[in-house]
Amino acid sequence: MKMTQAELTAFLDSEFPQMRPLKLRIEQWDGATLRLAMPITEQNLRPGGTVSGPAMMTLADCAAYMLLLGLIGPVALAVTTNLNINFLRKPGLGDLSAAATMLKLGKTLAIIELSLYSAGVDEPVAHSVLTYAIPPARRT
Amino acid sequence: MKMTQAELTAFLDSEFPQMRPLKLRIEQWDGATLRLAMPITEQNLRPGGTVSGPAMMTLADCAAYMLLLGLIGPVALAVTTNLNINFLRKPGLGDLSAAATMLKLGKTLAIIELSLYSAGVDEPVAHSVLTYAIPPARRT
Amino acid sequence: MKMTQAELTAFLDSEFPQMRPLKLRIEQWDGATLRLAMPITEQNLRPGGTVSGPAMMTLADCAAYMLLLGLIGPVALAVTTNLNINFLRKPGLGDLSAAATMLKLGKTLAIIELSLYSAGVDEPVAHSVLTYAIPPARRT
Amino acid sequence: MKMTQAELTAFLDSEFPQMRPLKLRIEQWDGATLRLAMPITEQNLRPGGTVSGPAMMTLADCAAYMLLLGLIGPVALAVTTNLNINFLRKPGLGDLSAAATMLKLGKTLAIIELSLYSAGVDEPVAHSVLTYAIPPARRT
Repeated sequence: MKMTQAELTAFLDSEFPQMRPLKLRIEQWDGATLRLAMPITEQNLRPGGTVSGPAMMTLADCAAYMLLLGLIGPVALAVTTNLNINFLRKPGLGDLSAAATMLKLGKTLAIIELSLYSAGVDEPVAHSVLTYAIPPARRT
Repeated sequence: MKMTQAELTAFLDSEFPQMRPLKLRIEQWDGATLRLAMPITEQNLRPGGTVSGPAMMTLADCAAYMLLLGLIGPVALAVTTNLNINFLRKPGLGDLSAAATMLKLGKTLAIIELSLYSAGVDEPVAHSVLTYAIPPARRT
Repeated sequence: MKMTQAELTAFLDSEFPQMRPLKLRIEQWDGATLRLAMPITEQNLRPGGTVSGPAMMTLADCAAYMLLLGLIGPVALAVTTNLNINFLRKPGLGDLSAAATMLKLGKTLAIIELSLYSAGVDEPVAHSVLTYAIPPARRT
Repeated sequence: MKMTQAELTAFLDSEFPQMRPLKLRIEQWDGATLRLAMPITEQNLRPGGTVSGPAMMTLADCAAYMLLLGLIGPVALAVTTNLNINFLRKPGLGDLSAAATMLKLGKTLAIIELSLYSAGVDEPVAHSVLTYAIPPARRT
């Protein structure tokens, strides 16, 4: 672990000010699983009261990125190169949370898996796998 | 073609009011390719002036959905079941646009391919394939 | 559970005779996880002694299909609609095995996740998510 | 273009002897699109006379790899890191062919798109996007 939960929270707030309206909060970070929660607001809802796909993808991308930084530290300017997401079930109106774990942390690529949960729904509402390219600077 | 460009524009505005801040506009719809543009604002930018991945995924999902409705009409409550996106190049600060085409329109599944372009960048900045499940109602 | 391990083994042998040269064997099926193993032979190797990607994809597709049949029974003519696989680590020369679990079993779609292991390598060598379309017959 | 069609054909034959039974043949290579064909035999068929998914994935992986080598030359030991494939339509019993193009050739990653065709079927039967990691040796 290169960054603690408090350090990641501070980093998220200072480096991604445009994310503040989403009120993301890191709920767990133990060096293996990072859990990031997002309250559901009017803005995230689709007609019929469904959480929008883009809201879920934003949460997934952010959770995976926090996991990666937690493991390699804040120096790296890693970029998402691939995101694959399967939407499994209709989320409820409660908070959404993502639990991310590392599938492989290589020198140039990191592959992360995560499940998305909706408060009040037992099984995951979405499942995603993301790949990040890690720039050479990290490797020196 | 079941909906015209004007009908899709009106539908997007009335059914997705929470998308209005994104100022999406349909630039082309000829029955085969739908092109949807999104102006880049402060809110879509990441540190370092890069358009955020979630902004691109939002545009991709919306463009694909508009293409699908253009072909099957507004009755269907289709839902995204899978999105796969590869981020290819760093977008510039100009408008982003997505050009979506149908790979397969089946009875229960629609598979759509799209390329994302950034004004001022010649080659596509991202490429995505999306799957939508079409509810049985459509099939009657 | 609609089919037992023995029933699945018999089904695989009788319905997929062209798979016999692969000597696939179901090692576990408890109603939740299905584990399918494949011995590595000359035919599956790439130059340099690496198991080929197609061999791993064949195993993944077959394991996921067996899991699906185990849960819905042999009547369905389900077809793969999407396969996404990330290759994580170089496999060794030992047997390959896939552990498949159901992410979502819906009326028309089944989404399955699996990890591929190589005997002698601790962590998974590949991770895959597959989607199958289930024909209407199943739903009656 | 770093390798010609004849050079790629010779490379495929000498470096991948285990592929010989598939009788793959490069039909086109113009520096932008590589088309690889595979005759359909008993071995590739599923019950009911459908070409198997693994046969299509093998063809996809091989076509993408030939395209990559055509562009960067035979020195690189590139490895597939991700394959995503959507199966669109039932193939016929005629030859299968893959038409591959480069989406992005970067220093460490190459992203390739391809469509699979079945002789006698007008529209593509599958669509795939593959990512290859290019080892540092290539970059010196």
